Amino acid sequence: MTRTIVASATREIVIGFDQPFCVIGERINPTGRKKLAAEMVEGNFDTVTKDALEQVAAGATMLDVNAGVTAVDPNATEPALLVKTLEIVQNLVDVPLSIDSSVSAAIEAALKVAKGRPLVNSVTGEEEKLEAILPLIKKYNVPVVAISNDETGISMDPDVRFAVAKKIVERCADFGIPAHDVVVDPLVMPIGALGDAGRQVFALLRRLREELKVNTTCGLSNISFGLPHRHGINAAFIPMVIGAGMTSAIMNPCRPQEMEAVRGANVLAGTDRDCMTWIKTYKDYKPTEGGHAVAAPVAVNAPGEGAASNGRRRGGREARMARG
Amino acid sequence: MTRTIVASATREIVIGFDQPFCVIGERINPTGRKKLAAEMVEGNFDTVTKDALEQVAAGATMLDVNAGVTAVDPNATEPALLVKTLEIVQNLVDVPLSIDSSVSAAIEAALKVAKGRPLVNSVTGEEEKLEAILPLIKKYNVPVVAISNDETGISMDPDVRFAVAKKIVERCADFGIPAHDVVVDPLVMPIGALGDAGRQVFALLRRLREELKVNTTCGLSNISFGLPHRHGINAAFIPMVIGAGMTSAIMNPCRPQEMEAVRGANVLAGTDRDCMTWIKTYKDYKPTEGGHAVAAPVAVNAPGEGAASNGRRRGGREARMARG
Repeated sequence: MTRTIVASATREIVIGFDQPFCVIGERINPTGRKKLAAEMVEGNFDTVTKDALEQVAAGATMLDVNAGVTAVDPNATEPALLVKTLEIVQNLVDVPLSIDSSVSAAIEAALKVAKGRPLVNSVTGEEEKLEAILPLIKKYNVPVVAISNDETGISMDPDVRFAVAKKIVERCADFGIPAHDVVVDPLVMPIGALGDAGRQVFALLRRLREELKVNTTCGLSNISFGLPHRHGINAAFIPMVIGAGMTSAIMNPCRPQEMEAVRGANVLAGTDRDCMTWIKTYKDYKPTEGGHAVAAPVAVNAPGEGAASNGRRRGGREARMARG
Repeated sequence: MTRTIVASATREIVIGFDQPFCVIGERINPTGRKKLAAEMVEGNFDTVTKDALEQVAAGATMLDVNAGVTAVDPNATEPALLVKTLEIVQNLVDVPLSIDSSVSAAIEAALKVAKGRPLVNSVTGEEEKLEAILPLIKKYNVPVVAISNDETGISMDPDVRFAVAKKIVERCADFGIPAHDVVVDPLVMPIGALGDAGRQVFALLRRLREELKVNTTCGLSNISFGLPHRHGINAAFIPMVIGAGMTSAIMNPCRPQEMEAVRGANVLAGTDRDCMTWIKTYKDYKPTEGGHAVAAPVAVNAPGEGAASNGRRRGGREARMARG
């Protein structure tokens, strides 16, 4: 069974086929958020702090941390800013982190100060990337997100995307990095532009799981780009990718409809033991006019919840519930 | 490609792997509805009329019609009551119907008066049932729902349920009924009681599709029996069964959350051409507090909608949209 272990200073989480879906909170990322970028450049981390706390409260399993403020010279400025952001976040919340940067020097700087076992986001099939990132993955013994594009860009042919993923897994093996430490992103296209985008991903996920035996992730909301009521498309996509074998996603945990889809799919995939997280989250559910739940957020696979076996700490609320 | 054709007097619908999910409205059924049963016995069809109109307005592809009022002698009373109910419904709405009865004489009486090509719900693997129902299916040249239980009851072993389904398909062949006119119900268990219920159904659906090449259906809301916020579980289950290959379900189309899941999954499965039904339904979407859509209902695969190719009639709104 493929198990990718990530950890904060005190909490270990397993990403795997038999585990609750791993929700990687996407909010701490200045890309496309001018105000946040400006704040971070000025050394103001109020929004970062708020985003970290809100995402964990909403049920994020992990948090992605990106400090790409598109400075004139990111190689010079991004390492220090990413380190600063990472340190603030890891001192604030107790979930494993994903170190997200396109600047290799920033990834290495962050790895030097990161507590626990962070995920590195990301490497691609580009030769230059492989040569820069894989030695760091090996040196720091951490897992890595492998995005299935290369020098030729993103192929519209899913067989080519599978081949790129396979090449990265093989290159990792050459560096002594096991397949269970490679989390493949098969790349999700917008369904509004490419009607086949869903079926492509579902087929790719099966092959990645059955042939390469790797965990998988994606930038989830890409699927609904350009369509009205994107949260509805996202909420249907989540159970379908979970059913097809995806084990994590980079997404916004502060959207109740998407998180409800994650929790429901965990119940149906058999990874929410005795439906405990579902029952705890929705036992006092009151429908709103639209028929959708507003629930007290519960971490999808936080220790002490339905997936207690996934974390180091046990007992607590779970133990009390069993007695009650 | 497996195509099950059902029809009302004027409208033909195809159930198939490449078609939008077929939503069979479950409401016209006095089982567990004492008030409705009492009304129907008294010859009052006001609720039946209301349920028929509301379900079609909410987007039902077909309507199930059941008149099982649990009389002392259903063999004597149900045929006339089912005929009466069916006639009222088919004169009121223009969607194909499913004739739902455990009384063979009631099914035959209804088949004699039904317009178009109704679906018969149902036969099981029980010898007595097979001998009573299959000759009617052959004689009236209609499709049939095949429930995968037999004299021994409902097996908890999915391999046994598959074997029962296979036996029914083979018996149908002996009667000259093709596999594409058999819609198998693999039987959905409550996930709250059987943690494996989801994975069992997903695996069964794949085998039914790949090995028996049949269309499939289920009583959808069984999955969430006993859990809080059942609509949330149902709404996660729908995309998962559609992803696993299910092509229809007997469900309540008057629940916006479930219908949104159907429409979203159709987009992602590639059966909502150019996302037209989705865009038409949600283009003016306003989120409610809970983040869930309240949308103007659009039939999931009504002619003239996104799945226009599925019906006999074309043009109309769809043609205008293409121009606009």
